[in-house]
Amino acid sequence: MINDNVIDIAKNLINRRSVTPEDEGCQEAMKAFLATLGFENETMVFEDTTNLWSRRNQQGPVLCFAGHTDVVPSGPESAWKTPPFTATEVGEYLHGRGAADMKGSLAAMLVATREFVRDYPHHKGSIAYLITSDEEGPFINGTTRVIDTLEARNEKIDWCIVGEPSSTNDVGDIVKNGRRGSLTGDLTVKGIQGHVAYPHLAKNPVHIATDALSELASAHWDNGNDFFPPTSFQISNIHAGTGAGNVIPGELKVCFNFRFSTEVTNDILIARVTEILDKHKLDYNIDWTFNGQPFLTDTGALLEATQHAIASVCKRPTTLSTAGGTSDGRFIAPTGAQVIELGPVNATIHKIDECVKMADLETLADIYYAIMVRLLA
Amino acid sequence: MINDNVIDIAKNLINRRSVTPEDEGCQEAMKAFLATLGFENETMVFEDTTNLWSRRNQQGPVLCFAGHTDVVPSGPESAWKTPPFTATEVGEYLHGRGAADMKGSLAAMLVATREFVRDYPHHKGSIAYLITSDEEGPFINGTTRVIDTLEARNEKIDWCIVGEPSSTNDVGDIVKNGRRGSLTGDLTVKGIQGHVAYPHLAKNPVHIATDALSELASAHWDNGNDFFPPTSFQISNIHAGTGAGNVIPGELKVCFNFRFSTEVTNDILIARVTEILDKHKLDYNIDWTFNGQPFLTDTGALLEATQHAIASVCKRPTTLSTAGGTSDGRFIAPTGAQVIELGPVNATIHKIDECVKMADLETLADIYYAIMVRLLA
Ligand SMILES: [Zn+2]
Ligand SMILES: [Zn+2]
Repeated sequence: MINDNVIDIAKNLINRRSVTPEDEGCQEAMKAFLATLGFENETMVFEDTTNLWSRRNQQGPVLCFAGHTDVVPSGPESAWKTPPFTATEVGEYLHGRGAADMKGSLAAMLVATREFVRDYPHHKGSIAYLITSDEEGPFINGTTRVIDTLEARNEKIDWCIVGEPSSTNDVGDIVKNGRRGSLTGDLTVKGIQGHVAYPHLAKNPVHIATDALSELASAHWDNGNDFFPPTSFQISNIHAGTGAGNVIPGELKVCFNFRFSTEVTNDILIARVTEILDKHKLDYNIDWTFNGQPFLTDTGALLEATQHAIASVCKRPTTLSTAGGTSDGRFIAPTGAQVIELGPVNATIHKIDECVKMADLETLADIYYAIMVRLLA
Repeated sequence: MINDNVIDIAKNLINRRSVTPEDEGCQEAMKAFLATLGFENETMVFEDTTNLWSRRNQQGPVLCFAGHTDVVPSGPESAWKTPPFTATEVGEYLHGRGAADMKGSLAAMLVATREFVRDYPHHKGSIAYLITSDEEGPFINGTTRVIDTLEARNEKIDWCIVGEPSSTNDVGDIVKNGRRGSLTGDLTVKGIQGHVAYPHLAKNPVHIATDALSELASAHWDNGNDFFPPTSFQISNIHAGTGAGNVIPGELKVCFNFRFSTEVTNDILIARVTEILDKHKLDYNIDWTFNGQPFLTDTGALLEATQHAIASVCKRPTTLSTAGGTSDGRFIAPTGAQVIELGPVNATIHKIDECVKMADLETLADIYYAIMVRLLA
């Protein structure tokens, strides 16, 4: 693989059926590639998850490529135009599960690294790879545990490029320079079950909760800021009732999620929800799941190098954004690292017939290369 | 059976495993009994349901006993102290499924009828029985179809005693002289499904419905009247969400039920719900199931005879009530008949270890007898 071009490396990875949390040898292939370039590989297995920490040189600063070898399931394979785990060229595009998210990015990182090490064998600082196989899964035994391990031995990442497919129409048109925080609440409102014919003996938890839910749904949490849209509250699930039409339910279950900006914290949101529920005098229980603080990289050498590299390779500027779902960047940013996400067009990710424009992977490798030159040459 | 006492007749019926819509020969036993007393029996089978219309004499007025031979399932038989389908005396009580709802009532009707016909062989008017085996089931092929048949041939019931267990502490302490109406709505509120990270691309049906649900839950429908409590609205089921915590649901399903007084009609309630949903500009679909108009018997010879009979047999007055669930009385009252429900204590109905005080069945037979004397002697 060491002499392959970016398309062949991407094909090699796509052909491995690494449905989360499986890795199917992707990391072994990457390790062999990186070892040839003088990297020291360290495999970290946590429970069912294989992770790779690989580093070239010991000195700082550390520029780290982060990504994942696992992919989401293909869905019904018969619905695909080409077999999802057989990388197939269709016109200008390379088709297969993971083509865009994110085996194509991994291939571009590897090619960029090979070219950079060849051109600048005595570069400054260190290059590192932080690769997991559970980004699409429960993200418990992946990046977060590798980061814990690095933190425990005081090993720092200064700049991190996450290869998530950030682009919208053309590769590099969007760079994610942060992500919103995510907080989930599982609310149970308690009532008293009864028969609809005897409502005075029951207490309908749906009736007593509607005002509080209405207030939560229409609440204004913050105004957002230059980099984040206003914090958003969404009820994802609501359930009450036995199915029988003549029974007043005994409890109501509501699951909701916040995507929040850097203008608030999870503690502030929890306090405000609690205040609203208490004001409506609900008898309730709530379990909170904190999925990550928001992070933001709004200045610094990494951002400057990335903007410069895209301008130089693509002959147009890039747009910074913090929109969209969470990524493993949320585990890396809290260590103090500058973090951006830069990868191919995300139009087909997690869908049937996932694909990536082959020329975009070559452009992406050129951008990665230009960033490395700017930071480490 | 014709010479048995009320307890033996009740045992005979309880020992038949007539779980709805099964009859298990109960009606055949009743037919044999009634034929001996000069009744003409007419079995009406509709789909899976056997019904009995039995009548003594052809002239008016018609006093009809109405009831059902089917029972609700026993639940786990091992949870019962005595076998549910083997009538068993335990102290002063007779145990078994249907003892109170309503094979005990049927036994009391039969004994009262036998004694009345023996004492007044040339009584005024007619005595009739309207017996079904689907009262505990979907009530599609039972009383409502018998009534349709009678209406089609212009056969009228003037007075109807439904043997439902109306009593609370002592037999005859409560007579039901009406029932609330019942109306069910199945509401689907439409939104647009999406990812919680992209709320601007979605439309959360839970959020847009909470205000309307709050208004429905707190709405004042009427004040009730002397015989009916205010109309009651209850949400019995509410569901939205795929289970995933990061998906904004595409639709919300809400099932609700009205128990309504004679101060409103189903048309009025439907119009008011529609007005509230439209005011909140919801995109919705609603399916209505109309389970019966409210009915009320607040004057007339039947009520007068019943109050007199209870006062004379029990040496205390009775209380009129329209509380509680629906009964087959709702199908009979619309023909213009005066309808009351009078039966044993309902504390154990539909429960494990259903039972009836044996003396109460004898008292009930005496009350039925006294009503017949007052109306037909
Ligand atoms: Zn990804
Ligand atoms: Zn009954």
